[in-house]
Amino acid sequence: MIQRTGQYTLHFPSPPGILSFAAVAGKKEAEGPLGKNFDAVFDDTTLGTDSFEKAESALQGEALLHALKKAGLQPQDLSLLLAGDLLNQCISSTFGLREFGIPFLGLYGACSTMALSLGLAAVLTACGAADRAAAVTSSHFASAERQFRLPLEYGGQRPPTAQWTATASGCVILTRESRPLTVQDVCFGSICDLGITDMNNMGAAMAPAAAQTLTRYLRDTGTFPQDYDAIFTGDLGYVGSQLLMDLMEKEGFSLQQKHHDCGIMLFDRNKQDVHAGGSGCGCSAGVLGSTILPAMQQGTLRNILFMATGALMSPTSSQQGESIPGIAHLIHLSRAENG
Amino acid sequence: MIQRTGQYTLHFPSPPGILSFAAVAGKKEAEGPLGKNFDAVFDDTTLGTDSFEKAESALQGEALLHALKKAGLQPQDLSLLLAGDLLNQCISSTFGLREFGIPFLGLYGACSTMALSLGLAAVLTACGAADRAAAVTSSHFASAERQFRLPLEYGGQRPPTAQWTATASGCVILTRESRPLTVQDVCFGSICDLGITDMNNMGAAMAPAAAQTLTRYLRDTGTFPQDYDAIFTGDLGYVGSQLLMDLMEKEGFSLQQKHHDCGIMLFDRNKQDVHAGGSGCGCSAGVLGSTILPAMQQGTLRNILFMATGALMSPTSSQQGESIPGIAHLIHLSRAENG
Repeated sequence: MIQRTGQYTLHFPSPPGILSFAAVAGKKEAEGPLGKNFDAVFDDTTLGTDSFEKAESALQGEALLHALKKAGLQPQDLSLLLAGDLLNQCISSTFGLREFGIPFLGLYGACSTMALSLGLAAVLTACGAADRAAAVTSSHFASAERQFRLPLEYGGQRPPTAQWTATASGCVILTRESRPLTVQDVCFGSICDLGITDMNNMGAAMAPAAAQTLTRYLRDTGTFPQDYDAIFTGDLGYVGSQLLMDLMEKEGFSLQQKHHDCGIMLFDRNKQDVHAGGSGCGCSAGVLGSTILPAMQQGTLRNILFMATGALMSPTSSQQGESIPGIAHLIHLSRAENG
Repeated sequence: MIQRTGQYTLHFPSPPGILSFAAVAGKKEAEGPLGKNFDAVFDDTTLGTDSFEKAESALQGEALLHALKKAGLQPQDLSLLLAGDLLNQCISSTFGLREFGIPFLGLYGACSTMALSLGLAAVLTACGAADRAAAVTSSHFASAERQFRLPLEYGGQRPPTAQWTATASGCVILTRESRPLTVQDVCFGSICDLGITDMNNMGAAMAPAAAQTLTRYLRDTGTFPQDYDAIFTGDLGYVGSQLLMDLMEKEGFSLQQKHHDCGIMLFDRNKQDVHAGGSGCGCSAGVLGSTILPAMQQGTLRNILFMATGALMSPTSSQQGESIPGIAHLIHLSRAENG
């Protein structure tokens, strides 16, 4: 039910199907180029709660509820829930999803979590461990800023390389059954650390991991970037995306006209002052659920790679002088020709 | 390759084998009743590093290295590494394991992480996603105290219900191949929150989740506690263990003479001043790798349940008035009759 292609890539001869997906977002994301694509947007980014952390939890619950509703499912129809987020001890996931009563696998992959959760959900449904499994993740600008950088009230300056944590959540529900949209392959990445220490330049820290995972996958499968309609990364931003292009050139692969970054897609750089682009677990999850998967459903995209990248640091590790290790997990998604 | 038994339990007709395991610990753990069982103990609990967080990372690397060495393996012989810990953004795992270059799945299950990682590694090896996979986790008293409670220098008083975070790490390496020690079943738990809010009474917060997962597993499989040589929880401590006994009685199951708690086993309550017992991801991982699996290897235990429990809170969630959700994942381990 699961084959290995080369050293790192998992292939599904009977690929798990995408049953449903959803994405929800905050006010700033709603004002961006993809704003109209979300299932719900919240102008009040507290979502009526009394803290930003609780608001982020609420985003995850909303994303899951929308995905369940679109599939006509109840929570008990899911065998497993795979989720994670950026907050300490992953409390957005725990508190956002505790009411659902679904067996819960907690993950931590920083901003790579949407690909990590989706990849694991694909393996678990393909092998029969779950009939249906949901992958969920989130981020929130205000909860992330005060945990990783400075409280908003401080009014700190942001350098041009800094990315903007998206207030968003995305959810994908997979099934063992055949569906028009499927997960064909998964390539889980290794931790990659080239010694970047600037907490305000996450794109540069994550690009080498993205290049490593993408190179492994392309070599394992004997494919080239030109074989895909698009290669989406999330979230390298402007700085990291250029680095990825350069690193892939050195490996002999051109990403020209194939590469798109969720952090660049989510916001309008000229109008929205997000510096190097969007970031956060919710950024790639939100773009996947709002824009990429709908385009696949409509047939404008048929064969894509989705590769989410994470910076596996904490404020403590950075204060102790550590560099920022990156990781990237890759998912190959396709639409059946007759789908 | 993977069957479902009842609603929640995963069964492996060709069970993944335990290839190797190891556990390392700090000075206090070495002075406890299981002290002689560890593969290595460190009297200097900084392990020669300049921070407790770096020391905890070093523990994970040591546990993995010992397990690899005992199996005669190199890091590249592992297809996947599954790891997590208690620190913010799981930095013990990231920094402790980044040098190994193995595809890495980051997990967060608080103190349930050893069962979460072992359960997922079992599924991933059983279904062919990995030929060999390692599950690793850790905790460190000093890094946990200053992150979750107070810096050691503060000299805060500990209430009698408080548990003592173990300085330890454990690692188990699984293989697709048949071995004398095997993982027979896995039951992933749901988040369970009965409204406990006392950060110094984690045992009480986790006991309902343990009761829920154990009840689900026993009902799914039609077995009783008496069918097993022992049922190990980690880490309910003295308070939570009594609660688990009471909750299971209400479900019609007596755990008399079958239940052992890793948090109670690790320390000598009379001599070591640990109040309600040990805790931390490294507690159950350390007891599993140092004591439970060796007893199975020697044949003194043949058929056991290992159920690690986690409290999925953060200081932030507690400060915001939230209760403490618990989770418990269960692993059924057995030794072949002719093993």
